[in-house]
Amino acid sequence: MTGRELTPDDVESLAVGAWVLGTGGGGNPYLSLLNMRLLHKEGKRVQLMDASDLDDDAYVAVIAGMGAPLVGIERLTDHRVFARAARLMETHTKRKFDAVMGMEIGGGNGVRPLLVAANLGIPVVDSDTMGRAYPEAQMTSVAVGGLKPYPMTVVDVRGLESVIETVPSWKWAERVGRKIVVEYGSTASTCQPPRTGAEVKKWGIHGTTTKAIAIGQAVREAQRTHADPVAAILAVEPGKLLYRGKVVDVERRVTEGYLRGIARFDGMDEHRGVPMEINFQNEWIVAWLDGEAIAMSPDLICVLDSVSGEAVGSETIRYGQRVTVIALPPPDVFLTPKGMEHVGPRAFGYDLDYKSVFA
Amino acid sequence: MTGRELTPDDVESLAVGAWVLGTGGGGNPYLSLLNMRLLHKEGKRVQLMDASDLDDDAYVAVIAGMGAPLVGIERLTDHRVFARAARLMETHTKRKFDAVMGMEIGGGNGVRPLLVAANLGIPVVDSDTMGRAYPEAQMTSVAVGGLKPYPMTVVDVRGLESVIETVPSWKWAERVGRKIVVEYGSTASTCQPPRTGAEVKKWGIHGTTTKAIAIGQAVREAQRTHADPVAAILAVEPGKLLYRGKVVDVERRVTEGYLRGIARFDGMDEHRGVPMEINFQNEWIVAWLDGEAIAMSPDLICVLDSVSGEAVGSETIRYGQRVTVIALPPPDVFLTPKGMEHVGPRAFGYDLDYKSVFA
Repeated sequence: MTGRELTPDDVESLAVGAWVLGTGGGGNPYLSLLNMRLLHKEGKRVQLMDASDLDDDAYVAVIAGMGAPLVGIERLTDHRVFARAARLMETHTKRKFDAVMGMEIGGGNGVRPLLVAANLGIPVVDSDTMGRAYPEAQMTSVAVGGLKPYPMTVVDVRGLESVIETVPSWKWAERVGRKIVVEYGSTASTCQPPRTGAEVKKWGIHGTTTKAIAIGQAVREAQRTHADPVAAILAVEPGKLLYRGKVVDVERRVTEGYLRGIARFDGMDEHRGVPMEINFQNEWIVAWLDGEAIAMSPDLICVLDSVSGEAVGSETIRYGQRVTVIALPPPDVFLTPKGMEHVGPRAFGYDLDYKSVFA
Repeated sequence: MTGRELTPDDVESLAVGAWVLGTGGGGNPYLSLLNMRLLHKEGKRVQLMDASDLDDDAYVAVIAGMGAPLVGIERLTDHRVFARAARLMETHTKRKFDAVMGMEIGGGNGVRPLLVAANLGIPVVDSDTMGRAYPEAQMTSVAVGGLKPYPMTVVDVRGLESVIETVPSWKWAERVGRKIVVEYGSTASTCQPPRTGAEVKKWGIHGTTTKAIAIGQAVREAQRTHADPVAAILAVEPGKLLYRGKVVDVERRVTEGYLRGIARFDGMDEHRGVPMEINFQNEWIVAWLDGEAIAMSPDLICVLDSVSGEAVGSETIRYGQRVTVIALPPPDVFLTPKGMEHVGPRAFGYDLDYKSVFA
């Protein structure tokens, strides 16, 4: 296996970049970053490998926190809990994992595969299945690919452990998994349906850990040099600046295990006098400029702190924050008709035809 | 192993008697009876054995349907589904079952262990863990005994399969299990936490299949000879006649995976002019005579058709039915302070001190 050891600096950048790619969700990476700093002090090292270096029959864990981000910042989950989700899957399926990857690169879920890697002594694959964060289990490249939607393990810090052994569809995996997570208290650690190396190579969204590290490096470098961190992101990613403004209102509630709501903004600078609203279900889904939907899933809508360039999450966004909203292009897999069924605006209940920011 | 083969006539009687012991719940046994008739025609035979004949390290499946009885009569479950719940447990725990018993002798759940026995070719133990039917997983002798509350499997007719691998308590087993069952559509087949032979011998409620058969035989014999079937039950069981009347009103709703409501009665014969109300959560929990609580869990409250002597279930009780309400004594295990915590009136939310019908 080729690959490289992730440095502490890589991990610091990953946390910043994954939070940007989280599009408001995936959970704040800060706690996972603290866990990784601790594991590094204890001598644990993590190898990052390319999916192309996986054997076809390699057995790959797919890790994700599941629940409502607002709860995730109240009930903290230590690194061993994610490892327990993976170990329960190993016991249940009677097979040891060769590598681990994230279900989503966005937010804390972009860092959590490293926690599992450090605990299990296996490498992290530089791929995920969303290229961002999404709220539901069927909103992945592997679901679009029609890969097997089970088994899945769901564990929590108190020792609760469940296995979803069989479901007829990804939507059912989401339905049953979500109800378990809600009963746990709307936050849990999951090991998603394991994948073979061949499946990861064919259906994974590749290079996303590297991409997140690059974004984080750009933001951190701009912070150090007092340059514009938002411009720094747009220099390394083919994104588009949508809006500058300040938060004037947030409606937010935890329902059915998701964090749903609306953030409202007043425009500043070139957008003075023009209001924006962004609907969220954990992640930012549709952005409305003066009543017109100007950006929507699967395009990545990223709300950034205008000064620091760091992402603002749907669970912590608050009145008065100065923010810059940018869009980043989505993974190709979601632009197919099947992809659009899974993550297009109608998948979230919006009666809108997808119109790309980048068209 | 000593034991005896159950005859078709035994099974017919078991269905009638288990329905009486169901105290309104456990699900109508009719569908399980039809399944058993079919299996008998196919040549399948079932052995009934005493718990005392179990080896201490025997591995015993504990079977139950879980959900809201009203749903159970709309979505039918064939005999293979219960066997699948047991087989999933065997696969998950990597051990074959030596015998099977019911979680509850009441209602359809008193007959379902026979379905599993016929499919797996193992005997049925003449014991259960409730001595009746109860709506929640922690309302059992094995929960009162503090035995391990996991793992548990939950399957349904569509192929959904889940495993509750670890929970910190029986109440948590109920909480997580119930949410899964609700998402399945409020009806599912479960294999409860497996028991050793030693555990069954110590904590099982014994002879309950035999008791249900005896009650059923008494009712059926009375039906054949045009004798009073209610008197026939009271001749074989130390019960007490509480009330004769007719149903004048039923409030019923499926909430949180249970069937909850109130049945109201007008008195007849010696109770003319005296109203009765019975609250139910799947099972009849508290009976109020003219506003006074005269019978309550853990005493068995049985609502019987006054003419046929057969039990009336909470899911089908309807306006105009002529019924006789009797009480039967509860298993001793529920009369301890710990037992009362699990199944006394306060466990169901009633601010009542338990007063026995038989005091």
